[in-house]
Amino acid sequence: MLLEQTIQSIGKLDEKSMEAARKRVDSLIKPPGSLGRLEEIGVQLAGIQGKKLPDCDKKTVILMAGDHGVVSEGVSVAPQEITFQMLSAFTGGVAGISVLSKMAGAGLVVVDVGVASELDTPGVLNRKVRGGTGNITTGPAMSREEAVQALEAGISVAVDEIKRGSRLLATGDMGIGNTTPSSAILAVLAGIPAEDATGRGTMVNDAVLNRKVWAVNEAIRINNPDPKDGIDVVAKVGGLEIAGLAGVILGAASRKIAVILDGFISTAAAMIACSISQEAINYLIPSHISGEQGHHLMLEHLGLVPMLHLGMRLGEGTGAVLAMNLVEAACRTMAEMASFEQAGVSELEEDKML
Amino acid sequence: MLLEQTIQSIGKLDEKSMEAARKRVDSLIKPPGSLGRLEEIGVQLAGIQGKKLPDCDKKTVILMAGDHGVVSEGVSVAPQEITFQMLSAFTGGVAGISVLSKMAGAGLVVVDVGVASELDTPGVLNRKVRGGTGNITTGPAMSREEAVQALEAGISVAVDEIKRGSRLLATGDMGIGNTTPSSAILAVLAGIPAEDATGRGTMVNDAVLNRKVWAVNEAIRINNPDPKDGIDVVAKVGGLEIAGLAGVILGAASRKIAVILDGFISTAAAMIACSISQEAINYLIPSHISGEQGHHLMLEHLGLVPMLHLGMRLGEGTGAVLAMNLVEAACRTMAEMASFEQAGVSELEEDKML
Repeated sequence: MLLEQTIQSIGKLDEKSMEAARKRVDSLIKPPGSLGRLEEIGVQLAGIQGKKLPDCDKKTVILMAGDHGVVSEGVSVAPQEITFQMLSAFTGGVAGISVLSKMAGAGLVVVDVGVASELDTPGVLNRKVRGGTGNITTGPAMSREEAVQALEAGISVAVDEIKRGSRLLATGDMGIGNTTPSSAILAVLAGIPAEDATGRGTMVNDAVLNRKVWAVNEAIRINNPDPKDGIDVVAKVGGLEIAGLAGVILGAASRKIAVILDGFISTAAAMIACSISQEAINYLIPSHISGEQGHHLMLEHLGLVPMLHLGMRLGEGTGAVLAMNLVEAACRTMAEMASFEQAGVSELEEDKML
Repeated sequence: MLLEQTIQSIGKLDEKSMEAARKRVDSLIKPPGSLGRLEEIGVQLAGIQGKKLPDCDKKTVILMAGDHGVVSEGVSVAPQEITFQMLSAFTGGVAGISVLSKMAGAGLVVVDVGVASELDTPGVLNRKVRGGTGNITTGPAMSREEAVQALEAGISVAVDEIKRGSRLLATGDMGIGNTTPSSAILAVLAGIPAEDATGRGTMVNDAVLNRKVWAVNEAIRINNPDPKDGIDVVAKVGGLEIAGLAGVILGAASRKIAVILDGFISTAAAMIACSISQEAINYLIPSHISGEQGHHLMLEHLGLVPMLHLGMRLGEGTGAVLAMNLVEAACRTMAEMASFEQAGVSELEEDKML
């Protein structure tokens, strides 16, 4: 029910606010278009928030964690228990995303939507649907009902944060082994070979990479997910945290709040979200291009162009949170720069410009 | 004298600090290398500052302004008086760089090194060498003595800011017409045709672009700058603010302080600085790739790879100040993230990694 209601309430961007924002941007003391992507983001945010001068006063990273049965196939060089161990690092302020979200002035909400541990970590939201997915090379990651539960967990966490005042969200993930299901999602939804969709994750060697490619192919062969049905895809070859993040995107879009995407896993979640609701794409802001092979294929599939070229491949939301600075820059230049008229600056000779 | 002393005191990076920093970065709870460029910047800064955990506690943008005689050839669509008008916008907090430097928590120092106005603007450092350059299509931009004065103005402003506690500098420029001399610098120092080095600046039309290409060719033909002598190049076909920014880079390098480069004009200044002192390159951090044609050729010539792909072409230091966030992220992740041991996180299986 929550999922259906959420999908129904995702609307189009507000054209009038976008026009007003574009006019404002073009009036500022700079050559037209010279703030590049910042101008585009400002106009997009105006359309999302339905006001000429959008804001991102309260920012929140939502990090979804889950485990993956497919790790039993040797697709990762990291022991599964790291997913659980990292939860304390996130809340303890010593993980990459803890440091970077604090620096960005953003809140960090850590959600256990499917970690393979019975234990709770203080400060982590327990929205566990199940303790890790099934092994996707032998069967589905989860049932369709569980996928909907994970999506709805994401929706409700996002909506809760928005009710608490968040004006800008970012996605983050934790889940040992989760590049393999993300590659499977890319392969299915973009219709590309597993070899192109699968990369080295934490820089695995050729032997492990070959097992990953095999696992992606086998997962698709065994489960036969329907590329027209995002819920089916994430249930059969996805992950709990991936479904959760897709829910975050849908929940935010339904409340007219923008979401900054992190890297490979988050963008897989965005592919699921946009497969469930085409309108969701308008609420997404890309951040970085990951070092993971295949991320650019995801972004191209979605028509998103990354801004940060840092060769990062950590996940957790670390790339997304770095882009908060750019979104804030978009808002603040629009709000605080003077127009040519206000500043008494001479006009450019527009007839000599393109 | 100051210039000579400064060049002499630019040393190599501290290898021991870089090794210690690399060891620290590799110990943190993340896959090795997964913070990408942030790790490289952290290690570079360690080498610059000579300590394992570098900082960027106090940040300052130095914006140099100057005018250009070549505007009389119709190479710009902006009236020359805008250079002077913008000074009040910078100090008044309403220009792009004012808004973005405030957002970054950085100081903004505006320096008049060659604006074509007799008037002083309150809050602007008056280090005027002369009121604008000569028309480079008919003679040199300035004398060699004036170029050295402008370089030394930049050195002394940078050193003053460093004495006041700045730990990270960024460069910014203001000067109507200054893409033309910057293109000339690129053409001379990289040995490439004016057509490749010259772009549309504020998006000028084909007629103006053709005049710019003509002006670059004519400036080089008339003045015959020596590509082995950066001072000769900036004196003959450069600009006062470009020489000033080259001085900022040399001054910062001599004091073991890193400089974030802005776009086309700042990178032209970096080419001059590195032509004067090869060691200066180690102290530079690139920021964005400008929308201006030719900027990527400058960066490639210097061996620098930009991090922000925003299609910006405003100058003023706006791209550089956005990258301060990335440099700060580099410092803070190194300082504040836990190691695997500290966090009690299981080790990765390194034998299965590349």
